[in-house]
Amino acid sequence: MDAVVLSIGTELIDGHLTDTNATFLARELAALGIPLRWVAQVGDDLDWIVRMLRRAWEDASLIVTTGGIGPTEDDLTREAIAQLLAEPLTIDPALLEEIRAFFAARGLTMPERNAKQASRIPSCEPLPNPIGTAPGWFVRRDGHIIVTMPGVPREMMRMWHEQAVPRLLPSIGGGAIRFRTLKTIGLGESLVEERIHDLIATSRARIATYAKDDGVHVRITAHAPDAGAAERLLDEVERALRARLGSAVYGTDDTTLGGAILELLGRSGWTLAITEWASGSRLTSLLAEEPAAGQFLRTATILTSQPPLDSSLEEVARDLAQRTAVAAGSDCGLAIIVRIDPGPTADRSVGQAALAVSTPATVVTRTHQITSHPQEIRRRVGLWAAEFLRLALLEASIQESTATSA
Amino acid sequence: MDAVVLSIGTELIDGHLTDTNATFLARELAALGIPLRWVAQVGDDLDWIVRMLRRAWEDASLIVTTGGIGPTEDDLTREAIAQLLAEPLTIDPALLEEIRAFFAARGLTMPERNAKQASRIPSCEPLPNPIGTAPGWFVRRDGHIIVTMPGVPREMMRMWHEQAVPRLLPSIGGGAIRFRTLKTIGLGESLVEERIHDLIATSRARIATYAKDDGVHVRITAHAPDAGAAERLLDEVERALRARLGSAVYGTDDTTLGGAILELLGRSGWTLAITEWASGSRLTSLLAEEPAAGQFLRTATILTSQPPLDSSLEEVARDLAQRTAVAAGSDCGLAIIVRIDPGPTADRSVGQAALAVSTPATVVTRTHQITSHPQEIRRRVGLWAAEFLRLALLEASIQESTATSA
Repeated sequence: MDAVVLSIGTELIDGHLTDTNATFLARELAALGIPLRWVAQVGDDLDWIVRMLRRAWEDASLIVTTGGIGPTEDDLTREAIAQLLAEPLTIDPALLEEIRAFFAARGLTMPERNAKQASRIPSCEPLPNPIGTAPGWFVRRDGHIIVTMPGVPREMMRMWHEQAVPRLLPSIGGGAIRFRTLKTIGLGESLVEERIHDLIATSRARIATYAKDDGVHVRITAHAPDAGAAERLLDEVERALRARLGSAVYGTDDTTLGGAILELLGRSGWTLAITEWASGSRLTSLLAEEPAAGQFLRTATILTSQPPLDSSLEEVARDLAQRTAVAAGSDCGLAIIVRIDPGPTADRSVGQAALAVSTPATVVTRTHQITSHPQEIRRRVGLWAAEFLRLALLEASIQESTATSA
Repeated sequence: MDAVVLSIGTELIDGHLTDTNATFLARELAALGIPLRWVAQVGDDLDWIVRMLRRAWEDASLIVTTGGIGPTEDDLTREAIAQLLAEPLTIDPALLEEIRAFFAARGLTMPERNAKQASRIPSCEPLPNPIGTAPGWFVRRDGHIIVTMPGVPREMMRMWHEQAVPRLLPSIGGGAIRFRTLKTIGLGESLVEERIHDLIATSRARIATYAKDDGVHVRITAHAPDAGAAERLLDEVERALRARLGSAVYGTDDTTLGGAILELLGRSGWTLAITEWASGSRLTSLLAEEPAAGQFLRTATILTSQPPLDSSLEEVARDLAQRTAVAAGSDCGLAIIVRIDPGPTADRSVGQAALAVSTPATVVTRTHQITSHPQEIRRRVGLWAAEFLRLALLEASIQESTATSA
């Protein structure tokens, strides 16, 4: 089985919208081991949609479409597939009833134009959309499968996982598929790959790395005879990966970097206060919107003046971290200081960063030099600070538990 | 003239990278009035690239490609175009010299593999790439044009504007093209469109709106017989748009929302201090990374505890804004308070926001209610706060200048 993804909607080819749905589907298809031949975006134009569908049909046994199944006259994906397959398009009374019920559940009457969303062709099996009005299609014809889903990412992703993947499984060997993502910080993508290279090559699960804003993600896809076996395979691979990546792993799946740091504070029963000096407010942003922030983050102070040109920036940070904790009455203090001086071009500005974390047990500091654009300097410093704070808290909580158990 | 955009690179179809280059080009082509038929992403595979190029050639007179012109064996765009057109691919000594010079200017020796970037076909005119090693191609053959550019966005955008557009102009009527973007805040996209609807329909310039993170952008494209006429047309349309959009316009082109706010502070010679209470640190982030932040933003304090369930949140904000200014010794104070209570689902959390701005002249307050996901609530409040602060400063500076001139 191989695939083509076709994204339908004029907003995708007039520059209003970037096709992130295709990125999601590309990643999913890779995880399922289905080669993706190409991806295309086409406008709300019947002839062009049909033309691209024909090419997709020629090139791949699986076509996945998103978009163009809304209630307006511009929504033409259903019509295009009917034309491609030369099948009649008629309103399905059962589907129509479901759409009416969707509106009724919200105290609304279905607008007449939504009736077209209940139309289907004979070889299509409708896919339920519990969070929207547009049902999807799962079409089987002449050794081909067409999966048709809404363009709204939330609706599309849910329909893909709950409806499309289970129906595709028999075509790729049956069984069950489970996913897990390990999130790491502090190692570059190439270093992560180097450490797990042999696992990627030999594991029965598919393993792929992704460089993200919050570190490098390692995604495991387990395809096994049943769900239990897939979960066991995930557990086994996770253990092997953790053995290689050690404390760089800060969580799995829904864990956020900010959440992981706050959880470490919670484990020690500590509170934190932050001073960011000329670093923007990146680390603060990371923590301040977490649900647990109110419990463990006392306050953050953002200063914007230029720090002194001083070889002892590290000492200034050490002092500032301690003062920050004292002033806020918190157990821990974090100081982030960035000094950025102009370079030959904006892209080569010269950044110096000093980080300090004080805990009830100790104060640790670290410095960084970096030449880049000011924005990039601050972004990197924010990540370094997150990693440094996390390691300091991890270290402190280990020492504490050792001391307690001694 | 009509167009197809082809983005080349395996990272685009394995889920590692979203094709934002295509979004940029789609917007540019729309501004030039060149209909875009479709966009496709294809991997680093010679046969598939040629196959998609053939289809593009069939469908459009202009093909724009990005990616696949690096120095590695995987970079196959040049080979694919040579195959499409059945032209020989040979190393161009002059191009090779340029690439060597690029490395030499950085004190480096050109690695041998980079020599392939100097290869070209007879019907291609090389496009200079002053910030990278990969020259582009401008190919004219049989009434078709192929523009081939690097995949690195910065290099691609510069090559597009400086090299490709001037060469495309004769095909779309000659003359000169100039762009300008007006940035607005406080009006939704539909309201902006409503106000300028007739200008969009009748103007000699192309006008398009884009909903962005920092408000709604209105982009003007002026195509005129020469550069001077294009600039005059831009000025004329800008005046007409400003007459409709009034104080919602905070700047043009490179102006950032944070920069516009700091500039207003600078105009009055005022400094600002901020307290964000449970709102995350979005407004602070907006301002703290601006180059002028050190001059006009004294300090920001981020509090994370849950504000009281209090009908007088607005009064609390008023008081907090004034205290914030006094404590920091600044002329102005901004207080942002958000209280988020759980709703039936996370997506329907209940948010209340109170905003207050104190200036030497006055204190103004505003409240908002919103039901959404906590993240979305904070994002919206951050934008409202930016808009509110901007209007308060605008108002104060108008009053001040009126008072001065009186």
